[in-house]
Amino acid sequence: MSKLTSLINLNEAVERLVKALSKTIQLEVEEAGLVNSVNRVLAVDIYAENNRPEFDIAAVDGYAVRSIDTTGATQYNPVELSIVGVVKPGQKPSETCLEPGTAVRIHTGAPIPYCADAVVMDEDVDVSEKHVVVFKPVPHGSNIIRQGEDFAKGELLVRRGSLIKPSMIAALAALGISKVKVFRKINVSVLAIGDELVEPGEERVDGKIYNSTAYIVLSLLQQDRIFEVKYSGIIPDDAREVEEAIAREISNGADLVITTGGTGISESDVVSHLVKKGDSVVFRGVRMRPGRPTSSFIYRNKLVVNFSGFPVAAWAGYEVLLRRAFIKWLNIRELERHVVNAVLTRRIPNTVGYSSVIRVMIRYENGVYYADPYMLRGSGVISSLLRTNGYVIIPEDIEGYEKNTLIQVYLYD
Amino acid sequence: MSKLTSLINLNEAVERLVKALSKTIQLEVEEAGLVNSVNRVLAVDIYAENNRPEFDIAAVDGYAVRSIDTTGATQYNPVELSIVGVVKPGQKPSETCLEPGTAVRIHTGAPIPYCADAVVMDEDVDVSEKHVVVFKPVPHGSNIIRQGEDFAKGELLVRRGSLIKPSMIAALAALGISKVKVFRKINVSVLAIGDELVEPGEERVDGKIYNSTAYIVLSLLQQDRIFEVKYSGIIPDDAREVEEAIAREISNGADLVITTGGTGISESDVVSHLVKKGDSVVFRGVRMRPGRPTSSFIYRNKLVVNFSGFPVAAWAGYEVLLRRAFIKWLNIRELERHVVNAVLTRRIPNTVGYSSVIRVMIRYENGVYYADPYMLRGSGVISSLLRTNGYVIIPEDIEGYEKNTLIQVYLYD
Repeated sequence: MSKLTSLINLNEAVERLVKALSKTIQLEVEEAGLVNSVNRVLAVDIYAENNRPEFDIAAVDGYAVRSIDTTGATQYNPVELSIVGVVKPGQKPSETCLEPGTAVRIHTGAPIPYCADAVVMDEDVDVSEKHVVVFKPVPHGSNIIRQGEDFAKGELLVRRGSLIKPSMIAALAALGISKVKVFRKINVSVLAIGDELVEPGEERVDGKIYNSTAYIVLSLLQQDRIFEVKYSGIIPDDAREVEEAIAREISNGADLVITTGGTGISESDVVSHLVKKGDSVVFRGVRMRPGRPTSSFIYRNKLVVNFSGFPVAAWAGYEVLLRRAFIKWLNIRELERHVVNAVLTRRIPNTVGYSSVIRVMIRYENGVYYADPYMLRGSGVISSLLRTNGYVIIPEDIEGYEKNTLIQVYLYD
Repeated sequence: MSKLTSLINLNEAVERLVKALSKTIQLEVEEAGLVNSVNRVLAVDIYAENNRPEFDIAAVDGYAVRSIDTTGATQYNPVELSIVGVVKPGQKPSETCLEPGTAVRIHTGAPIPYCADAVVMDEDVDVSEKHVVVFKPVPHGSNIIRQGEDFAKGELLVRRGSLIKPSMIAALAALGISKVKVFRKINVSVLAIGDELVEPGEERVDGKIYNSTAYIVLSLLQQDRIFEVKYSGIIPDDAREVEEAIAREISNGADLVITTGGTGISESDVVSHLVKKGDSVVFRGVRMRPGRPTSSFIYRNKLVVNFSGFPVAAWAGYEVLLRRAFIKWLNIRELERHVVNAVLTRRIPNTVGYSSVIRVMIRYENGVYYADPYMLRGSGVISSLLRTNGYVIIPEDIEGYEKNTLIQVYLYD
């Protein structure tokens, strides 16, 4: 790795990618239908145009009453109120005052009649044809959702940059929004570099290996759903051919070109050649393991990111570098991985100066999460992803974590 | 809710749905391309056809040596070995024995030469044109990945019923698999029942409300990606029209019809009418809150599930009932929600006999997760989903959880 002379650290690499992304990608806004907007990135802030509810409404099915009428009600001395009407959701609030000694049948979501100040639940009353019998006092305001309590007019409901989630869809629908302004997807083209590669499904002759690295990168990109992903096939270890392929993908509209392979001393190091030719180098190698040979440069005003040809190193390059840069650039917090605190079951060492990305298997036992680190650490060891469900990042200034340390584990999606 | 006479509990409802799903849906197997197989459900067990690696390989870039040659090496008394060759990934293992006093340049993933038994890393040596200088003893087996250590021939790699994840894709590719046998998607048709509904984007006249409930259900289904989701529009509160719509969706190939609305006493209760006409009732109301009026019946040999017309109740019906039934039926563990242990910041009460689904906001402070329960509990309160990121299920035999209890929180996707 002697050729990687100017390694930078992980955070610095993320920062540089964020800058490079904002410099090279212009994300136009487009409209998506409500359901199809799920997992798209919201391009505007969404505010409540009205109070919700628009007026005080019932939170339950029951009877709207004047709470003062129920004062002193007990099991043996209940209060009987005459039922004088019924209100349903969608009606406007009545303008006549509810008389003392009366009640109105009310359905969940229906407006509270004028002069009523509480709703008594169906479960808490006896009902005859014309009367409702109440057995305990109903406090003022019971089972009423106040005007604007769900959300108030002018309130910020969903922030620009949010990845739209099902939990937001009901709010958008309730506001009457049928088309949502979202950022267009980011066009990413993936090239696999390597004379030794054959595609899965093809015949594998001696000396060839199946291309697995480009596929893990493609599937990770696909999974994040903010990208329009294109696979552009295998390119030989030839700097000129790789450069042509990158140029072609950029002309064809790629916002970003990702290559796998061609980065290490094990290979012809075509990337090194290209990085030098690029308009500007973003970085050339990162002090992280796996993923050390990850590089990036700007070529014809577009960003090119080069991952290692080893599947786990490419995974790490995407997961903790490029993906974090996208999250930071667009402020898409919803893409951040879920985190659990877990007790480490074995010591994991680190080389100071490097960040280590350690795959772990989280298991839950008697109320405690344990993290078993995966001990086969070669960056070609695919089972390290198959047999784990999360990862730990050991920062560069730490010599490792001791057994029984409580660590933060990022969970795979 | 007096019409819901035969409420069953949550777990029983899930079990009945599992049975009904397996009785009514036949999931044929189809093939998906490798990248497009992400988030599809694997229909076969995948075993390793060969050892990986096929022979012992180098885990790092460095030099293959006979470890015995390095015995006694120190900083001041290093061992010098002649470089006699180079091996790259994809080559076959050499058949000639590595001579004592020699070393072979080896790249990560390349086969260990015959008679070599360790790899010394680039970082640990000095190299001249023809020699490599080693400064400390290299233990037998160092930096070697053994034949079959990544995975062994015949080993089960990915289980039938798995939701295929990026972390599995590299393994499938490395096995040479380009097409993956997956279950076809499940055809779900969603109908919104209600005279009072208008679609978002349409003009909302007095007495009408925007349809938000069907949209949250549609987006939840979409998000889980195992469904082919169809929205079939708003049907009036008319049992005959609803029945016709259900029958039409079934004729058009729906495996499952979901309705929203028409279930409560607040509505015309068209569902009640239909449930009675169905071939068999799966259940009629569930002892859960929200989501109590959730019903299900079999109609013309297909499953129909009726969610409440209130968005949060429909959300709960999908999230903790139907979705769990799908996970159980197909054994798709990858769809299970991530869980965190969190300290409850307020007491949450429960009515014994009912399961409560309480939305909470998880926050992380000084190494501890706290769960703030959302206190507006009406099933129409949309902000309860917007302002939270997970939920707690209080089981039916518990009166609630006290403040400061450590609880398990399921995180939204």
